[in-house]
Amino acid sequence: MARQVYDVVVLGAGPTGENVADRAVRGGLSAAIVEPELVGGECSYWACMPSKALLRPVAAASEAGHLLGVAGTRLDAADVLKRRDSFASHWEDDGQVQWLEHAKIALYRGHGRLAGERRVTVSPAGVPSAGTADENDADGNDADGNDDAGTELIARHAVVIATGSSAVIPPPLKDVNPWTSRDATSAHAAPGRLAIVGGGVAGCEMAAAWQALGAQVTLIARGGLLERLPEFAGDLVAAGLRDAGADVRCGTSVTEAGRNCTGPVTLTLDDGTRVEADEVLAATGRAPRTAGIGLETAGLEPGSWLSVDDTLRVIGGNDNRSSRTDGGDSPVPWLYACGDVNHLALLTHMGKYQARICGDAIVARASGREPAVTDRSSKACVPQVIFTVPEVAAAGLTEGRAREAGIRTRVVTLDLGNVAGAALFADGYTGTAQMVVDEDRKVIVGMTLAGPGVGELIHAATVAIAGQVPLEALWHAVPSYPTISELWLRLLEAYGL
Amino acid sequence: MARQVYDVVVLGAGPTGENVADRAVRGGLSAAIVEPELVGGECSYWACMPSKALLRPVAAASEAGHLLGVAGTRLDAADVLKRRDSFASHWEDDGQVQWLEHAKIALYRGHGRLAGERRVTVSPAGVPSAGTADENDADGNDADGNDDAGTELIARHAVVIATGSSAVIPPPLKDVNPWTSRDATSAHAAPGRLAIVGGGVAGCEMAAAWQALGAQVTLIARGGLLERLPEFAGDLVAAGLRDAGADVRCGTSVTEAGRNCTGPVTLTLDDGTRVEADEVLAATGRAPRTAGIGLETAGLEPGSWLSVDDTLRVIGGNDNRSSRTDGGDSPVPWLYACGDVNHLALLTHMGKYQARICGDAIVARASGREPAVTDRSSKACVPQVIFTVPEVAAAGLTEGRAREAGIRTRVVTLDLGNVAGAALFADGYTGTAQMVVDEDRKVIVGMTLAGPGVGELIHAATVAIAGQVPLEALWHAVPSYPTISELWLRLLEAYGL
Repeated sequence: MARQVYDVVVLGAGPTGENVADRAVRGGLSAAIVEPELVGGECSYWACMPSKALLRPVAAASEAGHLLGVAGTRLDAADVLKRRDSFASHWEDDGQVQWLEHAKIALYRGHGRLAGERRVTVSPAGVPSAGTADENDADGNDADGNDDAGTELIARHAVVIATGSSAVIPPPLKDVNPWTSRDATSAHAAPGRLAIVGGGVAGCEMAAAWQALGAQVTLIARGGLLERLPEFAGDLVAAGLRDAGADVRCGTSVTEAGRNCTGPVTLTLDDGTRVEADEVLAATGRAPRTAGIGLETAGLEPGSWLSVDDTLRVIGGNDNRSSRTDGGDSPVPWLYACGDVNHLALLTHMGKYQARICGDAIVARASGREPAVTDRSSKACVPQVIFTVPEVAAAGLTEGRAREAGIRTRVVTLDLGNVAGAALFADGYTGTAQMVVDEDRKVIVGMTLAGPGVGELIHAATVAIAGQVPLEALWHAVPSYPTISELWLRLLEAYGL
Repeated sequence: MARQVYDVVVLGAGPTGENVADRAVRGGLSAAIVEPELVGGECSYWACMPSKALLRPVAAASEAGHLLGVAGTRLDAADVLKRRDSFASHWEDDGQVQWLEHAKIALYRGHGRLAGERRVTVSPAGVPSAGTADENDADGNDADGNDDAGTELIARHAVVIATGSSAVIPPPLKDVNPWTSRDATSAHAAPGRLAIVGGGVAGCEMAAAWQALGAQVTLIARGGLLERLPEFAGDLVAAGLRDAGADVRCGTSVTEAGRNCTGPVTLTLDDGTRVEADEVLAATGRAPRTAGIGLETAGLEPGSWLSVDDTLRVIGGNDNRSSRTDGGDSPVPWLYACGDVNHLALLTHMGKYQARICGDAIVARASGREPAVTDRSSKACVPQVIFTVPEVAAAGLTEGRAREAGIRTRVVTLDLGNVAGAALFADGYTGTAQMVVDEDRKVIVGMTLAGPGVGELIHAATVAIAGQVPLEALWHAVPSYPTISELWLRLLEAYGL
């Protein structure tokens, strides 16, 4: 078995893994990345990019359609799919591989697996496509050699798990060959009838996309839609889907599903009704891709989410058997986990954020320093944009989460239709903004926005939350008239400033 | 002459005057507002509202037209104008008058004029339509009485000048009956050919609107477009106008203009060329509406811009003859000036911001306190959105202004086309972001954005600037992927974080 030595070995070449490796290399370390599928990961081919490529034309057409004076707008589904194909790079990763080369990150195509401390095996035989393996430390095999027994990668400083997550198939759908998010973002034509099981972000976004692109969508949600957010968000999205012609059924579950070969699927719901569809999308959650990657060799549970400290080091594992008696878990000094696998925030931008902190932390520790920058946002300041029609965007804590965190809150809610900039943006604008204030510190700890065009508005809230900008200073951050951003003025006025 | 006594008397019922009076009333004072034209002011009928009502459909149609998959979009100019009429309330102020009544602000329709300390005359006879005049203090005349000699308003605490500004007609256009911004925002049909003189905000916005609505626009600018901003902004707007079919002529001036009655206008430019047009819009600047309002009775120069302190009190005037020997000017203790007239920032939202501070300051001083909140933003943190196609937005200081202010700056510039969210927003997205950093304080002091859909993005910068959020904290304000807001990540990475 060929052996190569790098400072850092990363499992998973999604945006998270790429960013960890990049920060490590920029910090002067050598890095290898191991990927069994396409370089670029879920986000590039089967999640953010293709889904937003589908949804942006839908949103733009909807916005144009809600303005007196703009006429004739229609979607051309074939062209929308063509656009999506282009944003998904036609499911080819040449561009990403080039980026790795440019970034001097060695790529090993194959299945990576921990094989003990600071040790990863790649099978089938991984061949580095670029990079800076230190041949001095290699055990004599040529890095370019092909070895049927695979390659062993030795990590001088750190191994990083960034293998992401995959869709969970709920039991009733296991035998009906359901779509997952991968199929929903990469399908080459709209199914005639699409049933979607799950009222979270993926379910709502795909319902908006495919209903607009010609499918008759039935969305089945156990509770309401977007339940992690204030109720008005899910209600507005449900109203938008219904306006578009979708059948939205909340508070109901699938109890049985049947399908003959590739024929239609029949779903039986717990209220006794049946839904027949040409395809059914399972959008009921995610599971960590941590099975079969050798976690047990580090004393960790295969297939489990990985706990991390604020430098993204994995907590628990073998090193937990050490001398600590305070009841807490110790971090494994050489093992990190970034992105979906740590379950902190299953969002590409949060994975990339963690990746930057993780990469920098590895660089710092490699030179004997403790990291100066730690993860401050993955728990308290996570932003998210949901590209439904209309959009939903949130940052920080909801009222409920803030109270759970022991914060004395005050909540201010605003009808966005009363903001001049919103009325100008779309005729009959309907939307809501909700601000959660920490009454002791007099700062904003959460914001939720729902309505057309709110996606780009959330970053102002993210800055206010992350920057802990006092309310009295926000009073001097004047929103331009007439923009939708004037919601800030209205919220602060309603608060009492 | 009837006489009424109020705590505060405001000249001008635009958004600025309305907000001063409202804050005063909310603070427990009585207030009257004097307005010779429509209540709601320039912004409501001849500026922000009608211009943005015209421009929003133009922008939405342009955005839809730049997406593969959205087809058939066209503007219906008649409907756009109908929409504009609605947003301009058909040039009727009933709704605004109702708002004043609801806010318990007395309205005097007529021409207000200072007549000495804390004294305003209204002519022709002003009749209060609502409000809380203290009849106890009135000199016996009924507030509802009509008195041909007009009304005298006594201000117990303060008089506020909020009369705004009007268009300047440059000398060569004085005899050709040019359009001003009022005509350009209220015209009931597109002229066949429209010449626009002036490359500032009004000129560029009206060029974008009328070119899209059917006019053949020629825009004539002495220098470049939007010269107060970094060059890339004006260049992008010029490119957008040219793409739309407008004739943009930079670096040239009108030397002569001629017109027979209502026939076409012929402009002669300083390069000897001629431009013929059906209408010509003078968009070359603004003058304060401070002539004929009795400023001389307070020792101030009629027709001049008014200097103010950070509570919006007018500096200079009679009270300046007092005992001060430090060479500085003293504020007139009872006279305030908000909005365009003080020349700090000729923008509705800044007028409203000043109005809130001014109203609160009057309330504080009425009870013997000094104001807790003063104007921190009118000089260093002014945001502005220019609703051209594509848009431009800016907040804080440009590099040049920051250097003039003695700030050690570093500038980071970003090609927005490289941001994933921008590429998704529009096919072939072209735009630029520029951040100005104060290198000593390690905070952002300015941001300029140019590109489709950037208008709502500027508020994040306004929050960062007003909140003086350290760069190292902005690093934890994670922009959502894939939004255009990810420009923040790219700028901070380029800065070196």
